[in-house]
Amino acid sequence: MSPAPEGAADLVTTSPPSPHGEGGLVRVRVDLTYDGTEFAGWARQPDVRTVQGEVEDAVARVLRLRRVSTVVAGRTDAGVHARGQVVHVDVPAGSLEASRGRYRGTPLEALVARLRGVLPADVGLRGASLAPPGFDARFSALRRAYTYRLTDDPAGAPPLRRRDVAPVDGPLDVGAMGRAGAGLLGLDDFAAFCRRREGATTVRTLQELTVRRVAEGVEGCGGAGGSPSLVVLDVVADAFCHSMVRSLVGALVSVGQGRADEAWPSRVLARRVRDGAVHVAPALGLVLERVDYPPPSGMALRAEQARTRRGTLDA
Amino acid sequence: MSPAPEGAADLVTTSPPSPHGEGGLVRVRVDLTYDGTEFAGWARQPDVRTVQGEVEDAVARVLRLRRVSTVVAGRTDAGVHARGQVVHVDVPAGSLEASRGRYRGTPLEALVARLRGVLPADVGLRGASLAPPGFDARFSALRRAYTYRLTDDPAGAPPLRRRDVAPVDGPLDVGAMGRAGAGLLGLDDFAAFCRRREGATTVRTLQELTVRRVAEGVEGCGGAGGSPSLVVLDVVADAFCHSMVRSLVGALVSVGQGRADEAWPSRVLARRVRDGAVHVAPALGLVLERVDYPPPSGMALRAEQARTRRGTLDA
Repeated sequence: MSPAPEGAADLVTTSPPSPHGEGGLVRVRVDLTYDGTEFAGWARQPDVRTVQGEVEDAVARVLRLRRVSTVVAGRTDAGVHARGQVVHVDVPAGSLEASRGRYRGTPLEALVARLRGVLPADVGLRGASLAPPGFDARFSALRRAYTYRLTDDPAGAPPLRRRDVAPVDGPLDVGAMGRAGAGLLGLDDFAAFCRRREGATTVRTLQELTVRRVAEGVEGCGGAGGSPSLVVLDVVADAFCHSMVRSLVGALVSVGQGRADEAWPSRVLARRVRDGAVHVAPALGLVLERVDYPPPSGMALRAEQARTRRGTLDA
Repeated sequence: MSPAPEGAADLVTTSPPSPHGEGGLVRVRVDLTYDGTEFAGWARQPDVRTVQGEVEDAVARVLRLRRVSTVVAGRTDAGVHARGQVVHVDVPAGSLEASRGRYRGTPLEALVARLRGVLPADVGLRGASLAPPGFDARFSALRRAYTYRLTDDPAGAPPLRRRDVAPVDGPLDVGAMGRAGAGLLGLDDFAAFCRRREGATTVRTLQELTVRRVAEGVEGCGGAGGSPSLVVLDVVADAFCHSMVRSLVGALVSVGQGRADEAWPSRVLARRVRDGAVHVAPALGLVLERVDYPPPSGMALRAEQARTRRGTLDA
């Protein structure tokens, strides 16, 4: 990290900060994609490589700040990937302007270009923008969309996809998995599929849980060839408790393998206690695909609602 | 490698061998997929890691032979991947039977299971089967299908796809690339796009060269979301000379970037001499997707035709 220049502010983020207000702090929305394989998860921890650590160090280095703090939409576990992660970071407006230097373009364009130059190869910067008033990467989010990719091909994961496709014993009955998933939709207490955390609600609205079989390596429509050995689960909810997606996937895999009947996941859900028979699927198959936000006018209201309802639970 | 047991044959493949004939040799077709990142290409070389070396060592180990020789459909360069590579290997029928041991299933099923146990993580075994009479992995092939994946996203390759998506400066005019590609189709002398090898013809029939823009990370049809930042080229020919696909891609990228006009690749082709202005695209974006063969009845005839016409050229 570059040494902080004379007089550089040691940034302290207050919550909720004023996006364009006192102290000249501006809130920047940062869109990220990463390969989680070589990370001990999102959250910064001492002595291990984390996505948060890499991103905060990169921002601090580019803006010549001693330290910055990010707030993340989806706190991914070790080995979990992201295609559409969103974070916000509050930085002094002056640091943005100062770091532009001789870059042609806006301070934010300069920030993007410089961050792309310093981020490691397994973290991609999709973009950065001034956050609309009231935006909070975590609490303004309307919903998170994850995918989980697995294969029941006896050959195992395709070598080029061995970082994001989990091999399971098959053959999987994808139809049965889909029906079992449909039985879990709606507003409910998902405690049975959560690792409990003190003081956190486990009430969630599961909006989508679908299962489809596709050919690996065939993008778009109408592509010929390719054995349909990839099974993709799409999982969308307002928010997820810890290990929820991987527990849901594990339950559906048991159904797909015929080791549990289609109604079993619904029975587990109804008991509202964590069930040891629910296998937590491996991290590597999981990708945070997308985080949805309301239009700018609804941002602050949404954040207030989510803060009130969810307490301190992980997004 | 396991030591060869007493009396194990040192296999010498004669060409063309009799598939089920003298000496009790059987010809086995082996279908492979691999991540070429950590390989110095297909072809065995001393002191470097090659796909051929890994595969032949694995087959020899499982069948307890001192050495086996494979013949490959598409000799991929260093860093090039395969989703549908095909090879053949002639092995003593007795070694197949002997290696089955107590495995329940046919000797070939045993071979598949044991090979999957010993192959490294970056080589996948899709299957193995008894080759039909006259089958030759290289000379019986009707056509090879490759894809090339690149992105003009300023964010670079998606981190999870950085092993098989090549970043290029953009934005690319994909329509212009497609039109330029269409102008190259048909039977022609592709010397302008080949690295010459002594005594080898460069006459080829280019059957498909199309360019499409798709969203990365979205499999199948109708998937919402995802920015369409992935550009996929499909390239099919009876066979390819050395570096031909990567040279064709390089020429089309120049067109897509507006550095060359749409008719330029056709003019280069017509000159029939290698053109220094044609950039060879990086290996990592290239995948051998599929090798097509005639129905079993046409296998021997096709092999004879290809041998006669192509001489010693790389497939």
